[in-house]
Amino acid sequence: MPGNRQIIVRELPKGALTEAHFALREADRPVPGEGEVLLRTILMSIDAANRAWMQGATYREAVKAGDVMHTYAIGEVVESQDASLAPGDLVAAEARWAEYVTLKARRAQKLPRLRPLSQLLSVYGIAGKTAYHGLIGVGRPQAGETVVVSAAAGSVGMYVGQIAKALGCRAVGIAGGADKCAYVVKELGFDACIDYKAHADSKSLYQALKGVTPDGVDGYFENVGGTVLDAVLPRMNAFGRIALCGMISGYNGVPIPLTQPQLILQSRLRIEGFIVSEHTDDWPAALKELGELVASAKLKYRETVAQGIEEAPRAFLGLLAGRNFGKQLVKLI
Amino acid sequence: MPGNRQIIVRELPKGALTEAHFALREADRPVPGEGEVLLRTILMSIDAANRAWMQGATYREAVKAGDVMHTYAIGEVVESQDASLAPGDLVAAEARWAEYVTLKARRAQKLPRLRPLSQLLSVYGIAGKTAYHGLIGVGRPQAGETVVVSAAAGSVGMYVGQIAKALGCRAVGIAGGADKCAYVVKELGFDACIDYKAHADSKSLYQALKGVTPDGVDGYFENVGGTVLDAVLPRMNAFGRIALCGMISGYNGVPIPLTQPQLILQSRLRIEGFIVSEHTDDWPAALKELGELVASAKLKYRETVAQGIEEAPRAFLGLLAGRNFGKQLVKLI
Repeated sequence: MPGNRQIIVRELPKGALTEAHFALREADRPVPGEGEVLLRTILMSIDAANRAWMQGATYREAVKAGDVMHTYAIGEVVESQDASLAPGDLVAAEARWAEYVTLKARRAQKLPRLRPLSQLLSVYGIAGKTAYHGLIGVGRPQAGETVVVSAAAGSVGMYVGQIAKALGCRAVGIAGGADKCAYVVKELGFDACIDYKAHADSKSLYQALKGVTPDGVDGYFENVGGTVLDAVLPRMNAFGRIALCGMISGYNGVPIPLTQPQLILQSRLRIEGFIVSEHTDDWPAALKELGELVASAKLKYRETVAQGIEEAPRAFLGLLAGRNFGKQLVKLI
Repeated sequence: MPGNRQIIVRELPKGALTEAHFALREADRPVPGEGEVLLRTILMSIDAANRAWMQGATYREAVKAGDVMHTYAIGEVVESQDASLAPGDLVAAEARWAEYVTLKARRAQKLPRLRPLSQLLSVYGIAGKTAYHGLIGVGRPQAGETVVVSAAAGSVGMYVGQIAKALGCRAVGIAGGADKCAYVVKELGFDACIDYKAHADSKSLYQALKGVTPDGVDGYFENVGGTVLDAVLPRMNAFGRIALCGMISGYNGVPIPLTQPQLILQSRLRIEGFIVSEHTDDWPAALKELGELVASAKLKYRETVAQGIEEAPRAFLGLLAGRNFGKQLVKLI
């Protein structure tokens, strides 16, 4: 059956990723086998981690040349060959950049029909759970401490700062651009935000950070790496915690050495890398907490929504270049 | 009163430390004030951390030009102006490279008259406690896992590998020189040891390490940093732990960037820097465990003992260059 537009990875990037690495293709609608469902994609979650998936096998299989691009998504079951799901069911799954996909029913997570649907891919999705696990599970902040988060206006960063504020911490963001910094402070209630684009190197960024973290930094939620991490590390207080969630500055293959790793020893820091999908034990607590914050209007969020499967590569490149504001989604229906 | 030879720091090093940075001086024997004791130094502990103390204030006050060099030591109370200690008492304290020092009685820790005295500065001293805290408290190894330790023939490293073996782990050392590697494997019972001096760069060292860690590395006890850390990081298994105890390769001011910090994220590692003196809660358990291992002859150790206060600078430089074998001490009496 025709009518299944999808985006394939024509070639894996050696350096910077460009639109030329992708191609739109018309394909047949796949037919679900035993135990599978046919899913119609509604919303695709565009995440920086998707870029890391193209770097080779990490904690998951690599995205390969010729693949339909991988993505988290929400979709509606159109056809089911498994008793656990029925047509009309709303599910979240690791899908593809495609209007239709088939997948094992047990790989799909049934969702409530909550509105707006996009919340299921933001605050109640990977972004919210990631913010919660990294900040609470790894960072363990105490009221009165200072928490810094990079990519502060991004899908995860905006929750990190708001949850930190709700816990009684000083929340400081690092973001790219004056508009993002203004949004983070004025709309989301962060105490301060540094525009890293206004600083030529890590020393200058360090000085700016020093000005807004008079008591040093106790918890750092890292989404960027590279010179940003180099700038924050010397501001860390003794016994500080760094939750390593992403290192987007290195995803294009640029080396991102950590200049002064001896600070980890001198300041007796704890650094932990994590992938939220490996911490499902946290999720019930995360969803409860996030739901309460949303209900009490303490958690604002923002989305950038691109329309149509053909816009996925541009949305992805925009995210990697920091042109999005909050959660980047692609809406298919 | 005359008769107190001591070694002063003439000048702080800008780059490499040399004997010219120290000078032997004849001074008067100090007189203890109220609440103080006069200590006659018996054994001085020479540690790599002493070099870090000369780099500026870290977790403790910095050693400054003109200071009598700082050190951990064991001594005998000669005169006491405090009710808690009496002449003849044996104590451990942070003292100086000097035949006699005065210090607050409450800063001295009374010791049992255990023989040989040097054990109080090695297995039952900072070295043993450091090995225990870093390996057990930070690394949390499970039987069957692989533990790697750098400076494996050093005062701390030799205990780390032996305790790991006693826990049922595979223990692999990294040390400088074939003789040290042979000692670590044949005498101490490590499963393997890599001579880092036989490798020109971190890639070559990585390949050698790969050969002796077929199941990857779960716990890494770091004393060295720099290219050694760069070589071990890609061998770390998912959820591996790195106890950051020392980074001797950077103590002369040479930059020691961590080339691929993104591996911390990709392999979801936990890295923790620590200073054993901040974990006194561990010490009773450490001393009990270490005592049992010594009693059951599962814990061997080796010392390099220099004779006389005038030998302290040379002993210290030898340690920093890796010329010592096991715990480096200077014996005064």
